Amino acid sequence: MQDVLKEMRAKILQRHLKEANIDAFLIMRSSNIRYFTASTGGSHLLVPSDTAPVLMVPKLDYNIAKDQARGFDVKDYSRADLFSQLTETIKAYANLAFDDLPVSTYTKFHEELPALRLELRPEIVWGQRRVKDEGELNKMRRAGELADMAMAALKEKLVEGVREYELAAEATYVMMREGAEGYAFDNSVASGQRSAYPHAGVTDRKIRRGDFVTVDLGATYVGYRSDMTRTFIVGQPSEEQRKIYEVVLEAEKAALPEIKVGASGKHVDGVARRIIEAAGYSKYFTHSLGHGVGLEVHEPPSLSDQSGDILEAGNVVSDEPGIYIYGYGGVRVEDTVHVSSGGPERFTRFEKELDEVIV
Amino acid sequence: MQDVLKEMRAKILQRHLKEANIDAFLIMRSSNIRYFTASTGGSHLLVPSDTAPVLMVPKLDYNIAKDQARGFDVKDYSRADLFSQLTETIKAYANLAFDDLPVSTYTKFHEELPALRLELRPEIVWGQRRVKDEGELNKMRRAGELADMAMAALKEKLVEGVREYELAAEATYVMMREGAEGYAFDNSVASGQRSAYPHAGVTDRKIRRGDFVTVDLGATYVGYRSDMTRTFIVGQPSEEQRKIYEVVLEAEKAALPEIKVGASGKHVDGVARRIIEAAGYSKYFTHSLGHGVGLEVHEPPSLSDQSGDILEAGNVVSDEPGIYIYGYGGVRVEDTVHVSSGGPERFTRFEKELDEVIV
Repeated sequence: MQDVLKEMRAKILQRHLKEANIDAFLIMRSSNIRYFTASTGGSHLLVPSDTAPVLMVPKLDYNIAKDQARGFDVKDYSRADLFSQLTETIKAYANLAFDDLPVSTYTKFHEELPALRLELRPEIVWGQRRVKDEGELNKMRRAGELADMAMAALKEKLVEGVREYELAAEATYVMMREGAEGYAFDNSVASGQRSAYPHAGVTDRKIRRGDFVTVDLGATYVGYRSDMTRTFIVGQPSEEQRKIYEVVLEAEKAALPEIKVGASGKHVDGVARRIIEAAGYSKYFTHSLGHGVGLEVHEPPSLSDQSGDILEAGNVVSDEPGIYIYGYGGVRVEDTVHVSSGGPERFTRFEKELDEVIV
Repeated sequence: MQDVLKEMRAKILQRHLKEANIDAFLIMRSSNIRYFTASTGGSHLLVPSDTAPVLMVPKLDYNIAKDQARGFDVKDYSRADLFSQLTETIKAYANLAFDDLPVSTYTKFHEELPALRLELRPEIVWGQRRVKDEGELNKMRRAGELADMAMAALKEKLVEGVREYELAAEATYVMMREGAEGYAFDNSVASGQRSAYPHAGVTDRKIRRGDFVTVDLGATYVGYRSDMTRTFIVGQPSEEQRKIYEVVLEAEKAALPEIKVGASGKHVDGVARRIIEAAGYSKYFTHSLGHGVGLEVHEPPSLSDQSGDILEAGNVVSDEPGIYIYGYGGVRVEDTVHVSSGGPERFTRFEKELDEVIV
């Protein structure tokens, strides 16, 4: 990341702080620290509204933080005096916003600085992070390509008798060999009846003829993530498998063109949900349609029937309807999609037509 | 995990709660939920001191939670009514201990239930978790073997010109192909001057002749982790490289027999630290000697000069001295060690003599 960009991000935050009459913002969420400073190890970033930000890190991370967070003031601390260093700095403020604090720190601040008004305001930073700039989008494009390569490698190895964890190994190997820092979240390879678990993880179960195999994976590239699901069918599908698959795929594809500037998260969710409802599977779609993706795999904005979000250019979201029938099996199809002013752009592009997922 | 064992763990917690006059314990840390229930997805486990525990999960995780947390009462919630369900249940209590709470939940409890005394008491659960039973130790032995296999595969590929991330890919591939759920933490492959960063991560840097290559990796097996570091030297080492390596290795080996029942964490740290001090490198050993390992990669007890911990049978800790010279390079050697009544047992056993790490 260019230093100028990082400094710009902190300056934008400072402008928001001034507008909201906040004296300083204390950042502890590691993805937020990486967003502002590029530091992968920092633990506390204090951003006063009108003086230079200070990144505080444990002694052992001082050198890497200095090298990564160029342009930032970096201080190291030993665990014993972190709290006193912090209170010394913030005692001058009337109020302090934060993104995330351990309860122990929160209550200690209350005791030591009773006049300080503490405000949990994570949305101030999310407002910046949810709109990705071109540098971020390029990293996310690459994260999407890495997920595509991983899924292709997994499909190659998907035969009767192979174990779920062996498939996860192939996918992870390819994405990392091609430059991913690692997976974007714990891989899920859900086969047979296990495909009815939306969050299934990986076991030693062997793949059998007749299985749905729902694979949820993503790659992390320079901090940025992708998120993709494909459901494979082992052998010729039954009528019911065919129907469930086609309904989910239709829902996923119908939502795609709706992922555009100005659409509400509630609307996009509804487009997919109504297709599943009309096919008679509404009670088996037990989660929301999608979530933001970026430095974390679950971020704002949300595509759900509870969402108050309106999509903006630069948002990146997942589109992932599913049908999960306990004791039988389940299907999910998911892509990571960029809300661009030119229309939706898929970052994950692996094949998903019914005849392409039969192995 | 056997159901009887899981129920026993909850019963032991309930006994501790009664002794401490705590009405109920609210568990939110996912590793703690896994420890008590075997559920990998649960979000809130409420353990009253004298009635049956209740595991609360989001609707989409209900079925997997029911299947994993056998013997436990499982309830699902929609996000909108989680908080009201929780307050309905806990309003009868005079006090509620917890392991971890978001500040937003903590302050909402304070507002809605002003009479309820909230107590941050993570140490009650850590007291149980830090002493591993035989089933846990067996999983950790396997996690150690998987780390050994991964390091061997990485060493095979360690030649001039290969990139750090390619080495990380090989290590991850082998541990996962052999049954790991994934890596225990983000791999670190720190080559050349980057080896002076204790937490270095992985980049696209190419390995060069003369490099130290410090590799920190671990595997997760059924939730349990291993943690191992080896430093390789590419080509014949210089006199200084040789000396630094031998000092670190001597410190690591000297601490090993001290990792025994009744030893203090401060004592064990001191044994390694004095060797590094005597060799003149004290200011380059910028972290503590070790930490507990289990369902998380950093747990109690601690081996450090600030530690108040006394080692007990069933503890598992890392032993990881290091010397980090900024602008030059660094060396760390680390094993995961079980504090058994029969003496220290290494879970990671990959070779580490100087002539074995020259590639």
